[in-house]
Amino acid sequence: MTNEELRSLYAGPAQRTAVSPISRTLGIVAATPGMISFACGNPANEALPVDAIAEAALAALREDTARALQYVSSRGVLAESLCAYVGEDGISATADNVLATTGSIQALALVTRAFIEPGDIVITEWPTYPVNLSTFKVAGARVIGVPMDDEGMRIDILERLLESLRGQPVKMIYTIPDAQNPTGITMSLDRRRALMRLADTYKVLVAEDAPYRGVFYAGESIPSVYAVSQREGGTCIYLGSFAKVIAPGLRVGFLVADPDIITTCALLKQGADFCTSGLTQLIVDRLLRGGVVRRSVARMREVQAPRLAAMLAALDRELADIEGVHVTRPQGGLFVWVTLPEAFDTDELLRRGMENKVAFIPGRYFYPPERAGDHGRPETLAAPTHELRLNFSDPTEAAIDRGIATLARLVREGA
Amino acid sequence: MTNEELRSLYAGPAQRTAVSPISRTLGIVAATPGMISFACGNPANEALPVDAIAEAALAALREDTARALQYVSSRGVLAESLCAYVGEDGISATADNVLATTGSIQALALVTRAFIEPGDIVITEWPTYPVNLSTFKVAGARVIGVPMDDEGMRIDILERLLESLRGQPVKMIYTIPDAQNPTGITMSLDRRRALMRLADTYKVLVAEDAPYRGVFYAGESIPSVYAVSQREGGTCIYLGSFAKVIAPGLRVGFLVADPDIITTCALLKQGADFCTSGLTQLIVDRLLRGGVVRRSVARMREVQAPRLAAMLAALDRELADIEGVHVTRPQGGLFVWVTLPEAFDTDELLRRGMENKVAFIPGRYFYPPERAGDHGRPETLAAPTHELRLNFSDPTEAAIDRGIATLARLVREGA
Repeated sequence: MTNEELRSLYAGPAQRTAVSPISRTLGIVAATPGMISFACGNPANEALPVDAIAEAALAALREDTARALQYVSSRGVLAESLCAYVGEDGISATADNVLATTGSIQALALVTRAFIEPGDIVITEWPTYPVNLSTFKVAGARVIGVPMDDEGMRIDILERLLESLRGQPVKMIYTIPDAQNPTGITMSLDRRRALMRLADTYKVLVAEDAPYRGVFYAGESIPSVYAVSQREGGTCIYLGSFAKVIAPGLRVGFLVADPDIITTCALLKQGADFCTSGLTQLIVDRLLRGGVVRRSVARMREVQAPRLAAMLAALDRELADIEGVHVTRPQGGLFVWVTLPEAFDTDELLRRGMENKVAFIPGRYFYPPERAGDHGRPETLAAPTHELRLNFSDPTEAAIDRGIATLARLVREGA
Repeated sequence: MTNEELRSLYAGPAQRTAVSPISRTLGIVAATPGMISFACGNPANEALPVDAIAEAALAALREDTARALQYVSSRGVLAESLCAYVGEDGISATADNVLATTGSIQALALVTRAFIEPGDIVITEWPTYPVNLSTFKVAGARVIGVPMDDEGMRIDILERLLESLRGQPVKMIYTIPDAQNPTGITMSLDRRRALMRLADTYKVLVAEDAPYRGVFYAGESIPSVYAVSQREGGTCIYLGSFAKVIAPGLRVGFLVADPDIITTCALLKQGADFCTSGLTQLIVDRLLRGGVVRRSVARMREVQAPRLAAMLAALDRELADIEGVHVTRPQGGLFVWVTLPEAFDTDELLRRGMENKVAFIPGRYFYPPERAGDHGRPETLAAPTHELRLNFSDPTEAAIDRGIATLARLVREGA
């Protein structure tokens, strides 16, 4: 078969895939020794609970061999410990409400497969997380972003958007309410309540992506949107992750949702990967039961909070005097979002940064193709090009100081 | 939202899911102490290389921490060792041809997503593996089975089928050529060659599902369909698995295919689960490099060959005198396929078997809804109800003797 004949066989999802410039950047970073990277989404290497994971792996393999190494049910083996875990966070759940997934990326993939047909509308924050944005696009969804301010998604604009879309297939509002990726912004409690009331009124699902839940350095904990939905009404689907509180490499995440949604997603999971690795599930199970997750989060805070402080201090020191520069002040998560004066092109800044061994992700890759305008009507809009996302959890404080100094020099040279 | 409102939001794939009677049976088996199970698809517990896995896990966590516990590339970290592994089996592959997947179920899920639109036609063996059959159905495919004989899929009928389907969107021929699930039949070399020549002529992809490759107890090794395609032409996609040669619970499988297909599937994988666990990939990597996989396969043979012999002996002893009984004599894999006289209903036999603490999977669940008739025209056909699939790798020889004696008694009572 020629390549042309082969490509003529591809289905819609394959035709809608595109190589991500973010992956390309991360590939270059991984292959370049000495690169200071603000590009990735890794928790601090120094905070990974390696010994506890090794101990749990050995115990699972020795004491629970068949569950660790044979097939387990598609529903997974974590129901009990997941219910306890989210219970401590104010979510009331039973075994019928939870599903272990192969990372929270799979949780979103299953939910998307369950609900999104080509042409369906998904509403996200503007900007939002590109991997899941791409999942919506590959599924054929029309994605519309809602602008944010310091309290998160502008619910007033969301309401106008929902009103303007009446009669159209709006299936889902996707939000990252805690320390959002990429902005670091946390949605206020009032907005969470208003979000669920709107979702209830307009019969739209809310998918709450919560990878940074618990990864907070300051501020009071705000109830999850899922917990709010249990009081305010509306249907929320909680996408949980252990990537930022234990380790990404275990690929264990979870869903909390209505039992009907869980049953459907568990059936779809059979065909997706049959089940998540028993071994990695049992590692997480043992860490949850042994209180290691709580200690691991404390350790992540301990390592990452000074890195956030160093990042904000360096940005203040190096860039604050430039008119038009804005830096978010996240209370949690892994990212700071920087806005440069409008004339800047952060793709060009990245090119020059990489030459000087500093990497980050330009802001443009976080934007869906449409945005809700002030009056709520969707408008097609080119992504802003003068923003950048900076990860602070992976580099050390010294690397942060050097890297930000380099970037600031390049900004001034380009100004 | 009411349950009705919720269900009205489901997309096509969710609407096409159905609870599998096989999962229900496996659930009852797991919950019933003392059940003799011929129902599962597990390799022998006694043959799992637990110590080698534990050692590899510790070494990966200690010596390769970041790759084990952070994100890795969607393409995975196994390229080098996978190329060597399939190279020993006569397949020529470079890093561009391989993709690590979360089990071979994910490999098929990615290929299905890449190529199958609702209404596309997939051709399988009649009968075939139900999990992947369900994946095709959930994707909206029309699935047509081709009858088998002792040499595997009837390629003469396949050719007539392809001819009768000219002009229709036939995308893929899905085959399990080695020790097929459920029949245990291995496709002859002549058929493999003829299959690829037909696939080349009709511009149809062949997906070769190879979980039992290497798991052979007798007979000479036949080149894989993929290796044949490298000489004969045609486009083959190889779905590899370590479930039956190391352990299912690691959830590590792989794809070997044309670089364009690999690139597409790697992009689809980003949205499916981003990457397969670095930890479980590195365990497999170390076992491959250390020669443990070869030893593990030898050990599986050592444990499972006598179980196959015990199963065939017990079936001969207990059932051979009943007219109309036919038993396949597999040279590899995990399953024997038994045909009872046509009047038998193996769903009823299962019900009575479970009352007597013996479980298996009735044959009807392995059949697609349509079959190619002798003249090659597809016909809708009710699945045969007088067959059963028996797993011989999981139960001990003593359990096999007792379980088959019980089943034979129930067959005679029902005869």
